[in-house]
Amino acid sequence: MVKANGEKSLQTLIDEKRDLVEYFYNDTLAPHYRARTGLTAAYIPPEFTNWRDEQRAWRKSAILFDQSHHMPEMLLKGPDALRLLEKIGINSLANFSTDRAKQLVGCTPRGHVIGDCVVYRLEEETFELISSMPLLNWVQFNAEKGGYDVTIERDDPTPYNPAGKRWFYRFQLEGPNAGKIFNDAVEGDAPEIPFFRTAKVKIGGCKVLVLRHGMAGHLGAELSGPYEEMDKVRSALVAAGEKHGLKQGGTKTYFSTIFEFGWMPYPLPGIYTGAELRDYREWLSGNGWEANAQLGGSFLSDNIEDYYVTPWDLGYGHIIKFDHDFIGRAALEALPEGKRRKKVTLVWNREDVAKIFGSQFGDGPRFKALDFPVAYYGWPQFDEVRAPDGSLVGHSCHCGYSANEGEMLSLAMLDAACATPGTQIVLTWGEPGGGSRKPHVERHEQLKVRATVAPAPYAQSVQKLKRAAIG
Amino acid sequence: MVKANGEKSLQTLIDEKRDLVEYFYNDTLAPHYRARTGLTAAYIPPEFTNWRDEQRAWRKSAILFDQSHHMPEMLLKGPDALRLLEKIGINSLANFSTDRAKQLVGCTPRGHVIGDCVVYRLEEETFELISSMPLLNWVQFNAEKGGYDVTIERDDPTPYNPAGKRWFYRFQLEGPNAGKIFNDAVEGDAPEIPFFRTAKVKIGGCKVLVLRHGMAGHLGAELSGPYEEMDKVRSALVAAGEKHGLKQGGTKTYFSTIFEFGWMPYPLPGIYTGAELRDYREWLSGNGWEANAQLGGSFLSDNIEDYYVTPWDLGYGHIIKFDHDFIGRAALEALPEGKRRKKVTLVWNREDVAKIFGSQFGDGPRFKALDFPVAYYGWPQFDEVRAPDGSLVGHSCHCGYSANEGEMLSLAMLDAACATPGTQIVLTWGEPGGGSRKPHVERHEQLKVRATVAPAPYAQSVQKLKRAAIG
Repeated sequence: MVKANGEKSLQTLIDEKRDLVEYFYNDTLAPHYRARTGLTAAYIPPEFTNWRDEQRAWRKSAILFDQSHHMPEMLLKGPDALRLLEKIGINSLANFSTDRAKQLVGCTPRGHVIGDCVVYRLEEETFELISSMPLLNWVQFNAEKGGYDVTIERDDPTPYNPAGKRWFYRFQLEGPNAGKIFNDAVEGDAPEIPFFRTAKVKIGGCKVLVLRHGMAGHLGAELSGPYEEMDKVRSALVAAGEKHGLKQGGTKTYFSTIFEFGWMPYPLPGIYTGAELRDYREWLSGNGWEANAQLGGSFLSDNIEDYYVTPWDLGYGHIIKFDHDFIGRAALEALPEGKRRKKVTLVWNREDVAKIFGSQFGDGPRFKALDFPVAYYGWPQFDEVRAPDGSLVGHSCHCGYSANEGEMLSLAMLDAACATPGTQIVLTWGEPGGGSRKPHVERHEQLKVRATVAPAPYAQSVQKLKRAAIG
Repeated sequence: MVKANGEKSLQTLIDEKRDLVEYFYNDTLAPHYRARTGLTAAYIPPEFTNWRDEQRAWRKSAILFDQSHHMPEMLLKGPDALRLLEKIGINSLANFSTDRAKQLVGCTPRGHVIGDCVVYRLEEETFELISSMPLLNWVQFNAEKGGYDVTIERDDPTPYNPAGKRWFYRFQLEGPNAGKIFNDAVEGDAPEIPFFRTAKVKIGGCKVLVLRHGMAGHLGAELSGPYEEMDKVRSALVAAGEKHGLKQGGTKTYFSTIFEFGWMPYPLPGIYTGAELRDYREWLSGNGWEANAQLGGSFLSDNIEDYYVTPWDLGYGHIIKFDHDFIGRAALEALPEGKRRKKVTLVWNREDVAKIFGSQFGDGPRFKALDFPVAYYGWPQFDEVRAPDGSLVGHSCHCGYSANEGEMLSLAMLDAACATPGTQIVLTWGEPGGGSRKPHVERHEQLKVRATVAPAPYAQSVQKLKRAAIG
């Protein structure tokens, strides 16, 4: 969030803390702790039915996710809006017509990722940015400091939205039957919408903005409209879905889709160091999102920069387009091949997972418990990944269980030499010293867990779509 | 709940359903599903820190549970109040002075349990009854139909209380340090209170009613007072507890105490059959608690009476006092020894528990998943327990995990011949036919789980207190 008048800035917070990692690892307690499944519990149940059947529905029939509450939004308007986004984004916005949405990835001048979000071009000079609080803050800062002719409005997640509600509802309709349900729900003929293009349709008597999208490895749809019409549209979708096996998805299922889908959300923004970002840190609040990072996991460094990531680490290497002038371009162009990690999925060794579970019985030692389906608890989480010879080769971040795959999976950033599918690595599960002081981390001991490198996304069906979202 | 004007009665519901068990097993969906941990989520978090450390605190230091929201209450006043309670209770209320609380267990004329609750004698003719919706309904029905000179007021759990709040807050302070915290929190000298006696003290500037109690195997205290003073009293307790390792306990921990403590809450009330209870069923609502029983588990009978229990089955055999005239007395006196089951704890075989967990990996078969720490999902749940020769010897009801014991435990009612500690039995985990239609029951297969009979309560420290609560 932006610093309010008289409020402490992020820079002041950093100056006060002798060891920022120590602080983020032990003392921050943001509302988005425990990997966020608790954040919106008052609005969306963790499970509508049970998360196992909901995960299955997402793969086998269809699921309706409610995204109305957890993602921050921004409306960016004005003659300079596109120019600002092009300055921020490492990817090209060249063909950004008003019937499209785009992913937007923003970096620091040193080429470290700040965040990624989805942008709709609603009108020629009107853009809607969804998700990534750090990136929205960065866009706003640049708009204000860079002299762009734009206006900005922000809409915070429901739990801390001053209005107690949102501008827009947002649903995600996914799964092999999503298309049929969409066609049945739309009044009149349903339009054919190319991937990542938008259209306007009528559902339940309401005008709905549709983005043709994909999350579960099938073409799906993101549907949004005025918040007040949420229930009408949901009812119409649920009714249309009845004969197609549609389930509503709770937050446990929603936040566990990434293990199959391969998206690494919310990296630590690389903004805490460097004189060139001091202005930005003084502009940011000392109580906001960036001030409440919640590092967790077995990797513990005394240097916050060891947690910064580049677009390559998150699997965005191929979308960087050096055809336009953007923040971080020079640094990214100069980054040697050897420093570009690769995003992979790790498939955890079943015997070792069973050992973690089994440690809960008897007198110990107890290893860090695996909550199902979302097992990571840091935000972000960094678990050490080592080659069999003991050398550190990367970090495992989001870990959890997929009932569809029947595996414990994690998304990791590895040195290219270890990133080939089939490579055997060892990750350290659990934190040193019995665990951090974070109240949600129970006392535990560490365990070396064997894992096999696999592609990200892990689900075969998702891999087909992986490039299509970014033009 | 009592039937409202024009509302369908429980009897009408029963007449409509051809198979009541089939209905309760598949189609009811009450707010107390999933063993209640979701019921009060808007008021009490599932975890304040993490349930493993909270379970530990309950055994090793101290824990503060918030019971303000989930239990129904009744105020029973008038010259005939004690006489009514004596008519209901199978246990003696002979020494019920105004500085005491008592457990009250009520049965049908056939000697089947309806429910049990705690009763405070607030004044000579004023009694406060806490918990057990079916028992409170039964008390009210008898008051109205039996011509007792009493008045009755009801206060429902917060989630469906018309006032949106309660009469009283209620805290449970437990654990080896509970006494120290209590003494530190009380203004002035803390009184010595004998077990299950009450006193009035001042905490946080507020007058508080204290019941000396025990739940975690240590003497603890139940504290109550006007709902408006809840936050003041909680703050004072939390402050006093800081140096004594006090944790606040979430609902996951709260509802998992029974596996060590040995209380079998909320049996199916034995009211659905018998001409002598037809009046009662016509008085009860067809939408209330009794109409929304949620049978679950591997035991499936076509006769609802197979789910009825006697006081012996729940471990209340020793409290029955045939020194007064109460409903069900004749039936209980006549019940042959061979039909009196014994309450035990079952300690599940670790290899078989690991097999259930392991079934989540690979392509199947998948067994019914064990949610931690509360694994039972029926309300009530009945899992078949068989002797090694295959004969049915009883039912396992509430199952879950204790981090203190490092075991998967369940509370069961077994034939006396199989109830000796050390006896090996086999319970069937999971439902026939892939699972009921209940949305929270995922598709699964059944597994035979070996288990060892142990005393109930399981925790040694609790066993010492087990008789003391009932006079």
